[in-house]
Amino acid sequence: MRLKKPLLVLLAGLGLNASAWSADEPIQPIEPVKNINLAMAELGKKLYFDPRLSKSGFISCNSCHNLSMGGTDNLKTSIGHGWARGPINAPTVLNSSMNVAQFWDGRARDLKEQAGGPIANPGEMASNHELAVHVLQTIPGYVREFRLVFGDDKIDIDRVTAAIAEFEKTLVTPYSRFDLWLLGKKDALNEQELAGYKLFKESGCVACHNGPAVGGNSFQKMGVVEPYRSTSKAVGLAAVTGKDADRFKFKVPTLRNVELTYPYFHDGEAETLTEAVDVMGRLQLGKKFTPEENARIVAFLKTLTGRQPTFMMPILPPSVDETPKPKPFD
Amino acid sequence: MRLKKPLLVLLAGLGLNASAWSADEPIQPIEPVKNINLAMAELGKKLYFDPRLSKSGFISCNSCHNLSMGGTDNLKTSIGHGWARGPINAPTVLNSSMNVAQFWDGRARDLKEQAGGPIANPGEMASNHELAVHVLQTIPGYVREFRLVFGDDKIDIDRVTAAIAEFEKTLVTPYSRFDLWLLGKKDALNEQELAGYKLFKESGCVACHNGPAVGGNSFQKMGVVEPYRSTSKAVGLAAVTGKDADRFKFKVPTLRNVELTYPYFHDGEAETLTEAVDVMGRLQLGKKFTPEENARIVAFLKTLTGRQPTFMMPILPPSVDETPKPKPFD
Repeated sequence: MRLKKPLLVLLAGLGLNASAWSADEPIQPIEPVKNINLAMAELGKKLYFDPRLSKSGFISCNSCHNLSMGGTDNLKTSIGHGWARGPINAPTVLNSSMNVAQFWDGRARDLKEQAGGPIANPGEMASNHELAVHVLQTIPGYVREFRLVFGDDKIDIDRVTAAIAEFEKTLVTPYSRFDLWLLGKKDALNEQELAGYKLFKESGCVACHNGPAVGGNSFQKMGVVEPYRSTSKAVGLAAVTGKDADRFKFKVPTLRNVELTYPYFHDGEAETLTEAVDVMGRLQLGKKFTPEENARIVAFLKTLTGRQPTFMMPILPPSVDETPKPKPFD
Repeated sequence: MRLKKPLLVLLAGLGLNASAWSADEPIQPIEPVKNINLAMAELGKKLYFDPRLSKSGFISCNSCHNLSMGGTDNLKTSIGHGWARGPINAPTVLNSSMNVAQFWDGRARDLKEQAGGPIANPGEMASNHELAVHVLQTIPGYVREFRLVFGDDKIDIDRVTAAIAEFEKTLVTPYSRFDLWLLGKKDALNEQELAGYKLFKESGCVACHNGPAVGGNSFQKMGVVEPYRSTSKAVGLAAVTGKDADRFKFKVPTLRNVELTYPYFHDGEAETLTEAVDVMGRLQLGKKFTPEENARIVAFLKTLTGRQPTFMMPILPPSVDETPKPKPFD
């Protein structure tokens, strides 16, 4: 109880009032990250930025989930090993710990399982778990750091992906203007933005885009009222379940930081928020938003840009003579 | 005079003694960076990390001069647009402000002139100056930052490269163990390392690798005593001067952080320091170092690893609807 009064004073100083937070809203503020193993997250940050996990020595997790750019690559579909054209739009890593599952089709249960995927995907990092682990095992700086974090020298893919996932858990974006509004700072949004939020709720967008991540918590069919036409071959959840009923069901993306995560949809076909809102309205809700309505919703969506994770750029431990060499052109 | 005593106390506390620094050594400590325009350097850091300066939206300065990896890509030759295989090994950006000129063949006078090259090189970032500048002009966050730094809204390639160069001027690596030794911390090097330095001087390596950057200040023929055999088509300085006498003359690379900047030589053919020292001894000096001698020199070279520049990873201002889209596959 001793801490309570200073905390309230602090919140009042920020123009916030914890008691003003309404539990009735379909969107909740991003919760503070807790229980982070700092040394493991720091190791994971190095691995996240280390292109030696790829066959070429050129592609790291950060290449396609660039933390300078909203945790995405801002490309329609990603570029992989040998300049391969990826099949799908890179989802943001920001707030991805809140997702019900990982990848657009949900084929990875969690961040740890996800992290192993691209390393071994021939069209992404094009390495394999054995090689990636072997590279790390030869690097004295990594061996010491794994020892510090895990208590012994073993480096395996389980520990590698656990560390990357621990770092990714830190990549949340609190303090968006919308969250400040939710937390009681009533002047955090202007009239246009508030009208956009009202319309977002009343039109039914919140049916899928809700919760702290404003999405990420369910799979929904892309093209409910009208079919979605795309040249993309991605079939979504059906690729995982094998069920016809799951064709074109994709994980609803988070709308947190959506201002930064252009272009939109699993195929990256919507270049602007205006276009994305228009398509979503027509195909998912059977609504044709007027330009004014569309602009209102877009204004609201831009209030979901939170404080971006900032951190010291990691310095990677150098390879030694024994470290397997990258093979970009084999 | 009031500051003098506390400063001496501080140096003594670090085990340093300014008066012990000998001007007779052929290598000098890296000097502190001065006269940095901080706002310009901060803008330059963003530009350095911004892949939107490339046609693909995927390649930034940091892709090949990776500040997590000694300011290089640790590849034999770099990867460019469309997975192009570059013609030459990416030199480190660290301490590059001390170079007599930029690029292996010295074709750019300074960092500012260098920075414009890769942006417009079809095999590197594959954009052009007009497009890169236009992209930046559409981004409100950049427009504001250029206004802050330069006093008005104009964005042109001159200002873009000036800002990148200002950031690069900050990328020096003081506090190597060798510099601490030069500055009087006599236990900073062990016997093996000191013996390596002695051999480095006596064998003639210092004839080219001298000064604060331990190189970077002259052009020398690769293959003096014996010709250097390579499949590389690079001819060095002759490409700039057109003179036959300058064929295979390359800028002597800095040896600062050489432990981190593998592989070695303009063609990246030497994978290890051991190999590089052996080849240099034979081809440049007509000396065949014994394994023990080679190991001594390598031990000395590893004392040249300085404190790596550490900074907050930049957050880039987002594109807007009008921003030209990246074209990775055109």
